[in-house]
Amino acid sequence: MQLGKIVGTVVSTRKDEKLVGLRFHVVKFVDPDGKSTGSFVIAVDSVGAGVGEVVLVAAGSSARQTKTTEGKPVDSVIMAIVDELEIDGKTRYLK
Amino acid sequence: MQLGKIVGTVVSTRKDEKLVGLRFHVVKFVDPDGKSTGSFVIAVDSVGAGVGEVVLVAAGSSARQTKTTEGKPVDSVIMAIVDELEIDGKTRYLK
Amino acid sequence: MQLGKIVGTVVSTRKDEKLVGLRFHVVKFVDPDGKSTGSFVIAVDSVGAGVGEVVLVAAGSSARQTKTTEGKPVDSVIMAIVDELEIDGKTRYLK
Amino acid sequence: MQLGKIVGTVVSTRKDEKLVGLRFHVVKFVDPDGKSTGSFVIAVDSVGAGVGEVVLVAAGSSARQTKTTEGKPVDSVIMAIVDELEIDGKTRYLK
Amino acid sequence: MQLGKIVGTVVSTRKDEKLVGLRFHVVKFVDPDGKSTGSFVIAVDSVGAGVGEVVLVAAGSSARQTKTTEGKPVDSVIMAIVDELEIDGKTRYLK
Repeated sequence: MQLGKIVGTVVSTRKDEKLVGLRFHVVKFVDPDGKSTGSFVIAVDSVGAGVGEVVLVAAGSSARQTKTTEGKPVDSVIMAIVDELEIDGKTRYLK
Repeated sequence: MQLGKIVGTVVSTRKDEKLVGLRFHVVKFVDPDGKSTGSFVIAVDSVGAGVGEVVLVAAGSSARQTKTTEGKPVDSVIMAIVDELEIDGKTRYLK
Repeated sequence: MQLGKIVGTVVSTRKDEKLVGLRFHVVKFVDPDGKSTGSFVIAVDSVGAGVGEVVLVAAGSSARQTKTTEGKPVDSVIMAIVDELEIDGKTRYLK
Repeated sequence: MQLGKIVGTVVSTRKDEKLVGLRFHVVKFVDPDGKSTGSFVIAVDSVGAGVGEVVLVAAGSSARQTKTTEGKPVDSVIMAIVDELEIDGKTRYLK
Repeated sequence: MQLGKIVGTVVSTRKDEKLVGLRFHVVKFVDPDGKSTGSFVIAVDSVGAGVGEVVLVAAGSSARQTKTTEGKPVDSVIMAIVDELEIDGKTRYLK
């Protein structure tokens, strides 16, 4: 999974019919120190995450293993909200 | 999903038989400000998108989860047309 | 899909038994102007493409959705030969 | 598979229900000399690996082929702990 | 598929039970001239390849389409040993 921070949202009315009702978030990828890696992804929310939260994003067919995304044309899903991230025994991020 | 802008089309007569009738668009990947990331992809259209539109592209096996692409040798599909993109509470793109 | 130009071939006698009879092409990835992107892939041909032709390459599990590659350890397939590529209304490539 | 070193952990209470009980490790990718490649991934542990160990990480749908991860929204799994790595006949890493 | 040269091996005793008996090779990716691309992968051998040989590596779910790797948490497999590689009509590599 990639570590990311939700920074925005995408609105789309014309889309595949299976996508109706899904929320699309703009997720900026970050390193363990919270610094942007320079890339981002549009991911479907499956856990009620909101702008500003640090999350985990699963990609590929694994992105379709949630109830929200099963069988849908979705290749990136937010499947966890990060509470704490610890590196070498030190807390780097705490919600 | 990746954010992209449709900039062109590809015509192919000699192709896998399952691909007959599909439209192949050239999609330039863009960042949330609409600036090109420098890379692009050829994606099948499943939502009636046209040149100039900002779209979402799903890749991998997820690209085969639309009625248009099911069971076909297609690894990138346009599955949504973007109406609005908002970052940090501000509209960055409005159709 | 990625856009590429066939520049060579690979010969292999010792390989997985399912691969017998397949043709492996060296495909140089190109941008819409036909300029090399600097990377390449070895892809199985499913459409009778030859050296010098501009083609589309599908990757991942989508590469196994042709009759030639079904169920085989193949992650890249040539599934279309490009006749014409048009960007912003202008022809950039014509076979 | 990618070679990596476990450098930390991620704690998440709000996550997809299938993920309850899984351990998420921060894995820094390394080259055969143990030098960081600059990128990292959050991977689920399936072999009882701990911080400081050198491991192999499988990605994509292959990450769901362990008992720990089957059918879950997980795209990266630690499926082996490395005991020894040998390059050109010389041991580069020994646990 | 990617082109690579086997440069080493990985030994692991603590691993997913399905991986017992598999050989893990360190494969350095090379370009058609045999020059290293700077990246590498740990791949399972399915064709009896050894250190020093130039091989093809299939990734993702396609890596599980051999008898050796079926249903296992393996995302990269060596599925062919290269005998000859020809670019623009000239032999660039001959075993």
